[in-house]
Amino acid sequence: LAVVVGTAVAFAPSPRITWEHREVQLMQFHQPGIFNYSALLLSEDKDTLYVGAREAVFALNALNISQKQHEAYWRASEDKKAKCAEKGKSKQTECLNYIRVLQPLSATALYVCGTNAFQPTCDHLDLTSFQFLGRNEDGKGRCPFDPAQSYTSVMVDGELYSGTSYNFLGSEPIISRNSSHSPLRTEYAIPWLNEPSFVFSDVIRESTDGAEGEDDRVYFFFTEVSVEYEFIFKLMIPRVARVCKGDLGGLRTLQKKWTSFLKARLICSRPESNLIFNVLQDIFVLRSPDLKEPVFYGVFTPQLNNMGLSAVCAYNLSTAEAVFSRGKYMQSATVEQSHTKWVSYNGAVPTPRPGACINREARAANFSSSLNLPDKTLQFVKDHPLMDDSVTPIDNRPKLVISDVNYTQIVVDRTQALDGAVYDVMFIGTDRGALHKAVNLKSSVHIIEETQLFPDLKPVQTLLLSSKKGRKFVYAGSSSGVVQAPLAFCGELHTCVDCVLARDPYCAWSPATAACVALPETDGPRRDLIQEMSGDTSVCPDKIKESYRQHFFKHGDTAELKCSQKSNLARVVWKFQNSGLKAESPKYGLVGRKNLLIFNLSEGDSGVYRCLSEERVRNKTVLQVMAKHVLEVKVVPRTPVPFTSP
Amino acid sequence: LAVVVGTAVAFAPSPRITWEHREVQLMQFHQPGIFNYSALLLSEDKDTLYVGAREAVFALNALNISQKQHEAYWRASEDKKAKCAEKGKSKQTECLNYIRVLQPLSATALYVCGTNAFQPTCDHLDLTSFQFLGRNEDGKGRCPFDPAQSYTSVMVDGELYSGTSYNFLGSEPIISRNSSHSPLRTEYAIPWLNEPSFVFSDVIRESTDGAEGEDDRVYFFFTEVSVEYEFIFKLMIPRVARVCKGDLGGLRTLQKKWTSFLKARLICSRPESNLIFNVLQDIFVLRSPDLKEPVFYGVFTPQLNNMGLSAVCAYNLSTAEAVFSRGKYMQSATVEQSHTKWVSYNGAVPTPRPGACINREARAANFSSSLNLPDKTLQFVKDHPLMDDSVTPIDNRPKLVISDVNYTQIVVDRTQALDGAVYDVMFIGTDRGALHKAVNLKSSVHIIEETQLFPDLKPVQTLLLSSKKGRKFVYAGSSSGVVQAPLAFCGELHTCVDCVLARDPYCAWSPATAACVALPETDGPRRDLIQEMSGDTSVCPDKIKESYRQHFFKHGDTAELKCSQKSNLARVVWKFQNSGLKAESPKYGLVGRKNLLIFNLSEGDSGVYRCLSEERVRNKTVLQVMAKHVLEVKVVPRTPVPFTSP
Repeated sequence: LAVVVGTAVAFAPSPRITWEHREVQLMQFHQPGIFNYSALLLSEDKDTLYVGAREAVFALNALNISQKQHEAYWRASEDKKAKCAEKGKSKQTECLNYIRVLQPLSATALYVCGTNAFQPTCDHLDLTSFQFLGRNEDGKGRCPFDPAQSYTSVMVDGELYSGTSYNFLGSEPIISRNSSHSPLRTEYAIPWLNEPSFVFSDVIRESTDGAEGEDDRVYFFFTEVSVEYEFIFKLMIPRVARVCKGDLGGLRTLQKKWTSFLKARLICSRPESNLIFNVLQDIFVLRSPDLKEPVFYGVFTPQLNNMGLSAVCAYNLSTAEAVFSRGKYMQSATVEQSHTKWVSYNGAVPTPRPGACINREARAANFSSSLNLPDKTLQFVKDHPLMDDSVTPIDNRPKLVISDVNYTQIVVDRTQALDGAVYDVMFIGTDRGALHKAVNLKSSVHIIEETQLFPDLKPVQTLLLSSKKGRKFVYAGSSSGVVQAPLAFCGELHTCVDCVLARDPYCAWSPATAACVALPETDGPRRDLIQEMSGDTSVCPDKIKESYRQHFFKHGDTAELKCSQKSNLARVVWKFQNSGLKAESPKYGLVGRKNLLIFNLSEGDSGVYRCLSEERVRNKTVLQVMAKHVLEVKVVPRTPVPFTSP
Repeated sequence: LAVVVGTAVAFAPSPRITWEHREVQLMQFHQPGIFNYSALLLSEDKDTLYVGAREAVFALNALNISQKQHEAYWRASEDKKAKCAEKGKSKQTECLNYIRVLQPLSATALYVCGTNAFQPTCDHLDLTSFQFLGRNEDGKGRCPFDPAQSYTSVMVDGELYSGTSYNFLGSEPIISRNSSHSPLRTEYAIPWLNEPSFVFSDVIRESTDGAEGEDDRVYFFFTEVSVEYEFIFKLMIPRVARVCKGDLGGLRTLQKKWTSFLKARLICSRPESNLIFNVLQDIFVLRSPDLKEPVFYGVFTPQLNNMGLSAVCAYNLSTAEAVFSRGKYMQSATVEQSHTKWVSYNGAVPTPRPGACINREARAANFSSSLNLPDKTLQFVKDHPLMDDSVTPIDNRPKLVISDVNYTQIVVDRTQALDGAVYDVMFIGTDRGALHKAVNLKSSVHIIEETQLFPDLKPVQTLLLSSKKGRKFVYAGSSSGVVQAPLAFCGELHTCVDCVLARDPYCAWSPATAACVALPETDGPRRDLIQEMSGDTSVCPDKIKESYRQHFFKHGDTAELKCSQKSNLARVVWKFQNSGLKAESPKYGLVGRKNLLIFNLSEGDSGVYRCLSEERVRNKTVLQVMAKHVLEVKVVPRTPVPFTSP
């Protein structure tokens, strides 16, 4: 007989409101015949959104993306397509030019790479003429061959850093810098990269005080196959890796290779519930003047027994930096001749510290560049690129765990509520074309709303947030198009109670105009507005007088009384003459879970019916009358027809 | 940008029919004030079901368990309860006597052990007087102290073999034989047992031909913490272990310890979907004259990211035997002083083979008993109890994977369908008091029905199958009572099409009596019956003439037309005058997803309405008319009251 171990858990932070695509105003862009809008780049100066799609790049008005400003096409040549098809790839889908790199090169040009029928190629896009310059650079190592493979890239001071695969088969992963004066790459070895899926990369600038004389660092995020764990089958592990911008490679050892490549585990789990989120889907770097340091927000899904679980974990930059600069290394040990086990390295660590950027201290010790580093340091980092310490999330737990949904992308906006409190609002895309908007309220997460961005339910492939005050938007790309959404739909909330219950830091009730309005981001006229992030509706002015609808029915009729109610967190309760009624009984029924049916009406059914919404917020129940119906049932003089009720 | 790895999977073999508790005839037993009916023992000779509960044992009529034959109470003494409470346990729940061992001792006595307020005690229950003999044997090592801890036991030739914990804290696990001439136990060492949860044990008799002169073996099934894998946190592993009945322990090494204790991994997974079922919940041993060897059926749940997934895997005895008798052993190796890694042992294996039962060959070599075994063999098995090879399931995959349910218990009946084909019908209990009945049809699993055994949704803790031909029942125990269910509810299927669509090997249509009847198990009058496990309903006689109901309505009325439809695999389609109608529109609505509402009736709505059930069976759609309604709408002479529709 068994004691049940490991019982199932359920997570139900449901979005409070679900907006269908047609219910809210969204701007859209789609060019007939063009698919896979996967690369988005925003020029805030020019208010232009650049979109890289399959065989095309567009420039759109960032304030209204339905307005196309320019377009440029870059199709794989028939010759290349034929060669690609000869190698067994599909001419209709794979042997095309998928734009994968879309980066700013200068004020007047973009750097663009595409898969180009399995022959990755890069080019410059002139922004004045909006034409490709035909540079025809080899894109190997910057852009994948296969549109199905993962990639990431970031332009740093005119040099492109990328994570991708280096060959046709996609079997050789690489993190490289494309640079005329010092191109660098990773070793092709399992301890460095083991079947990675690249997710994201970005540059972290040295702190402005420059006390340590540190270097700028480029961070890479990916999921790879673990070497340090031994599981029943291949176990994935999310990683963060970083290289130093000043790295020039080694002189003999690690020649033209990174001398500063270190990587560590990213932890996102809830061990007490046996939840392991070990597949990283996306990272967003939140920067804000009031934040001491950047924060990495990541969305994760589980590899094992995945029935639709997702999580968000956030990491302080300093946590990752501490692991790289002071953490222990891992080493591989040979067991019984043929086995390998990765264990903590406890021996002496060479000086200068392997993998460290060249800083003031190193320069003082006459190591002015990575080319001067001693062989011992280089050999050590070549063999020990993996840290033993893990990068743990803020508060040591996920910010959000949700079931029945697969998150794909995330952006985060930091905003100030009316009372001065600051909230990090997460906008998270799903694999079914929706956008969740979530915020951490005291000790619990609240999903303000879910918006169906793509009615065809295609996965959200890219999310981008504009940061200009007063005109912030979320841009989302999918295989079918691009959508632009405002950060809030305050105007759709029609009463003060609804506006407050939304607990949306962007929205406040204006008693003067009797409307739910967007909170001005500037220090404008914010007085006289009502916002209560606790959801306490007692701040609302007295309820307006209830309006009602009157209906007349005949004896024996069936009545349907309507009730509209948007909150998924509320429950609809019908009352007749102020006392509750059982909605599932021979007398009553519910249609669409909200509208009330009353069967076989008799005079006793005359009276007042109210539809109430009952919503629990922080152990308090908020009741709202959503509809009021006055019914009058009259006896009709008998007619000769024999009536039978069904 | 990420390529989505590890997407979510869904498994939806839904039970075809759901029987609520009140819908079918079930026998029940519950003694007021008595709970935790967790031990069931059947005496097929006497047609008696013995039930061990908290502080009581009952004898019930096995043909109708609502008839109690005897009862005997065994309450923890006040003295013992006080001592237990002093140690910090709950007097109301933990410091009671939970019956955990209920085994046949002789024709006239049962062997019974209970937790007895954390002082496990065993006694003999005399079946003639149905009274305890007051033997007051120390139950340590046979029964757990704590009612929350796992346990298993089996009586073999008068000696009790058990797996349980040996101390108050439950921290010392043990597999032992309680025997006057040779009591044996496991070493208290992590490689032997590592925080196990015991699930099941049974004896496997030596093959009747006795060619090898082998011994009887006792098999134990449990889940424990893995030593061989290295995971982010403690990883559970399901195990099968076995000992030999003839084991007498070693003379010096392994004195009074098993010399034949070997254990191996039980695999139940779907690597291609990243599904790992590593928590064993129950095992059933299927034996049948037409089976070459016993088959172990196991139900499993996942430890990791468990959102309600369950699986059934089946194992041939010979697969496990081969691992124990010819498989490789694992060994632990020390890595960098402080780490341990378990790897395959590739060195020389001593003779006689460590852990083997004493067989003809061993006897021929003068090893007549385990007491004679050389020290080298004993020391080896002491250090290497874990096999390197795994016990893999039949067909290398689960028989059944299901989501949104947690399976707890299983019994399997092997039955012959009308066409002579043999089916293993699985009866599987859930943690919400339901019983699933499933059968493997060509390349897919079919869940014939789900029966709500316990209306209070309490977990099924024990399942037992009676095996007498012609009167087979499933008995289920939970914390609230015992339920007896027949193997099929053929009589509830009212048409030939329904009887065939059920694809229930126990049921067949009798055209003579126009009823769905239980297939006689004996070779009786099976001719003239209709059964088609493919679900091909064309074998059914021509449909009987449709009956219909006539209704009269007035202009402007709302009509509700009923339709009853039990199959969860079917979809209800309404037709008006033979053409389909859109059930969710301003004109029509659905109540309870089956009954049709027609709003605002006018003369054009007069006519014939049919409710059809559309069920797909093997790429064929079976249509059945479930209800036919004839509607007549009459205009009523105007009355002075002003009518408004809602």
